[in-house]
Amino acid sequence: MDSEICFKTAVELTRLIRDREVSPSEVMAAHLDQIERINPKVNAIVTLTAEKAMKRAREADEALARGDATGPLHGIPVAHKDLLLTKGVRTTFGSPIYKNFVPDQDALIVERLRNAGAISVGKTNVPEFGAGSQTFNEVFGPTLNPYNLQKTCGGSSGGATVALACGMVPIADGSDFGGSLRNPANFCNVVGFRPSPGRVPSPSLLGWFSLPVEGPMARTVEDTALMLSVLAGPDERSPIAIDEPGSVFAQPLERSFRGIRIAWSRNLGELPVDTRVTTTIEAQLNIFEKIGCHVDESDPDFSGADEIFKVLRAWHFNATLGDLAKNQRDQLKDTVIWNIEEGARLSGARIGEAELERTELYNRIREFMENYDFLMLPVSQVPPFDINQPYVTEINGEKMETYIDWMKSCYYITTIGFPAISVPCGFTPEGLPVGVQIVGRHRDDLGVLQLAYAFESETNFWKQRPAIVE
Amino acid sequence: MDSEICFKTAVELTRLIRDREVSPSEVMAAHLDQIERINPKVNAIVTLTAEKAMKRAREADEALARGDATGPLHGIPVAHKDLLLTKGVRTTFGSPIYKNFVPDQDALIVERLRNAGAISVGKTNVPEFGAGSQTFNEVFGPTLNPYNLQKTCGGSSGGATVALACGMVPIADGSDFGGSLRNPANFCNVVGFRPSPGRVPSPSLLGWFSLPVEGPMARTVEDTALMLSVLAGPDERSPIAIDEPGSVFAQPLERSFRGIRIAWSRNLGELPVDTRVTTTIEAQLNIFEKIGCHVDESDPDFSGADEIFKVLRAWHFNATLGDLAKNQRDQLKDTVIWNIEEGARLSGARIGEAELERTELYNRIREFMENYDFLMLPVSQVPPFDINQPYVTEINGEKMETYIDWMKSCYYITTIGFPAISVPCGFTPEGLPVGVQIVGRHRDDLGVLQLAYAFESETNFWKQRPAIVE
Repeated sequence: MDSEICFKTAVELTRLIRDREVSPSEVMAAHLDQIERINPKVNAIVTLTAEKAMKRAREADEALARGDATGPLHGIPVAHKDLLLTKGVRTTFGSPIYKNFVPDQDALIVERLRNAGAISVGKTNVPEFGAGSQTFNEVFGPTLNPYNLQKTCGGSSGGATVALACGMVPIADGSDFGGSLRNPANFCNVVGFRPSPGRVPSPSLLGWFSLPVEGPMARTVEDTALMLSVLAGPDERSPIAIDEPGSVFAQPLERSFRGIRIAWSRNLGELPVDTRVTTTIEAQLNIFEKIGCHVDESDPDFSGADEIFKVLRAWHFNATLGDLAKNQRDQLKDTVIWNIEEGARLSGARIGEAELERTELYNRIREFMENYDFLMLPVSQVPPFDINQPYVTEINGEKMETYIDWMKSCYYITTIGFPAISVPCGFTPEGLPVGVQIVGRHRDDLGVLQLAYAFESETNFWKQRPAIVE
Repeated sequence: MDSEICFKTAVELTRLIRDREVSPSEVMAAHLDQIERINPKVNAIVTLTAEKAMKRAREADEALARGDATGPLHGIPVAHKDLLLTKGVRTTFGSPIYKNFVPDQDALIVERLRNAGAISVGKTNVPEFGAGSQTFNEVFGPTLNPYNLQKTCGGSSGGATVALACGMVPIADGSDFGGSLRNPANFCNVVGFRPSPGRVPSPSLLGWFSLPVEGPMARTVEDTALMLSVLAGPDERSPIAIDEPGSVFAQPLERSFRGIRIAWSRNLGELPVDTRVTTTIEAQLNIFEKIGCHVDESDPDFSGADEIFKVLRAWHFNATLGDLAKNQRDQLKDTVIWNIEEGARLSGARIGEAELERTELYNRIREFMENYDFLMLPVSQVPPFDINQPYVTEINGEKMETYIDWMKSCYYITTIGFPAISVPCGFTPEGLPVGVQIVGRHRDDLGVLQLAYAFESETNFWKQRPAIVE
């Protein structure tokens, strides 16, 4: 029964709870058992709040008995990324500097999830300060890929995707600057959705900066949309929050895709991509045709995106973490110091050029998308790689210049702010998960979820669980 | 009859046109007569397209006869600020460098106004590149205040407000970085509304930069709202455009203000303000009480706003005009060169600090506004000053450090992005117009218009025309 509960979707669980077929405390107990059984093998959840979680689950039972259970996620277990503040629960950012830090407030989305009735089981592992798409740090060590324990789960929302893949939680939050909601989902056969900036209001130190976003992750697209319906909607604490209410994502995702045009770009015209990735995705393109879409092979021109992203990322690192590089340098990993120092060297004029180029790029891709409803491309340029390798140094014989270069297929999309999802798309011959990245037009978050849902309904790759959970 | 038509509101004119009581070509002829008669005295409209305007007005007559007149501004004369691109019509930005520049495209709001049926009579004067709240430039000379030709009309949307005050057009567009929709309205007894960033989508070179906005100006609040209903609403050409449709501003502006709380700040706790300004405004505070509001004297803490604004403004000048300072320096005014050079000196880290401080300030004022529905303060810190003075150098004996320091009461508000209106509030003993600035909470554009409308309905200062038009 336990493992059966743990692989039900959040949508199913809410129905079962509402219909009194299972109680929130039974659901929670099953998930805590699963965590106890599986987490030691993969190290996904790094701070477990089991006792609090069971207490809240019993309160959820009582609320239900009283007829007080109004939240759309009543009794659903969730885990929070360790970059997100959680009141009274250790929040390390994956950094030894914060290894004992206990915030006195919750992040906005933590607050929203709790208000919707979700119950936190604890915190999921991240790379130090979320830097790099490989989840390891000095505080907790690495998180392993459940489909192959010798491989990385990706990152930075790596703990979250492994927890999902292993049935430890049905939904989990994540965040994405260079690909952190998409890359680990793609490496772990789950769904990660990078919404439009402002869709999920994320109060931050740089309130108007729109490259980092927070968003939902789950095993299915429907669960991802359900979670987004709770996360989205305006809040004045974020000046760039989109006004549209989250409820637009609570509607059924079925729709017709007859005549919808998709551009498929295997490498954005220039990126080295491991053929195991492109082969796996291309084997599924017929599914999009089957549901009525026209798929053209076509490469948008992302010239300039690399520089734009690197400049703005470095600027952001220096603005938000610059003091640490001065005062606690010995406790930072080299790649973070490098990012901060690159940022410290930038002139204001260079930031200006990057913003001018970003606007040009946005308009160029916007015009490209006048001919296509969606853009599809690989999520990551490689399949999951060796767990002992901190980052990818070479693809198809081409050397990577920095520790993030292998993530261009994700971070180019970040620069323009279009919504993008990673949805399971199959497995390499070695059995490693591969996702496909679906990018929608400006603010078409709903369309992206609908197309991903239609694809998922035809393929159901998400049902293929990692062997270690059996 | 002519002058009677020219001082009707846009709302009245649309009704008269719809009811066939007056034709678009009669309306246009009256306004062109008024321009011919009055404009030489004040120099508000610097490029007149009378022939085109009459041709379009006759087409509007025909459309009406055919029953094709569907736009909400059908047949209404409008003028465009000379910072806005107008296809086939000279656009100088007030700079000798562009004195013969004829764009091959329209700005988005020019397009929207035309699609709504408005008919352009030409371009309104601006300071060089909109820099400084005094409207003069090498190409066209100064624009004079119609209430006193020895005084400035303010700026940078100065040509627009003078055209409105003199009955040359009933509505005009403007833009506002440091106060350019508010300051000239306040100096000319008309209404200027700075909407929330993204409310009026303004494709720009720096697509995500939210300090500069475009917005509506008119003699009355109702006309301002009517114009905003046409200007507002999403467009993908601006990545930060707000999704809410413009139609929300087409509803009647009447509402109850019983129990609404207003903070009145005479000087933001620290700014030198000419007592003629505060005395004039304070004489009207009872009106707000009369309509049901509670008015408290209370100063929000805008610490840091000055530096934030100056850093981001200089950065913007250098990013967008830096090349001109290198290549055509001798054709730029000193204040523009100074702004660009200040920008060129900034480090990326300084931009980062300014953005961190801006976010802190935003949150501080947001929290202040949890206790107040609106903030009221002077628009400008001085009444209209001598036309021969390029900017204010001293207030109440306090020396101004830069050419924009006397505009802090406007540009402090810019930094937080809250919507703000300037609405006529009376006259100094010398007969110079004074406006009051009403600031709403984050994105409460509608509330600001409603309160301004309620105030205007009780006071009707807008009806006091400049003597030169009689």
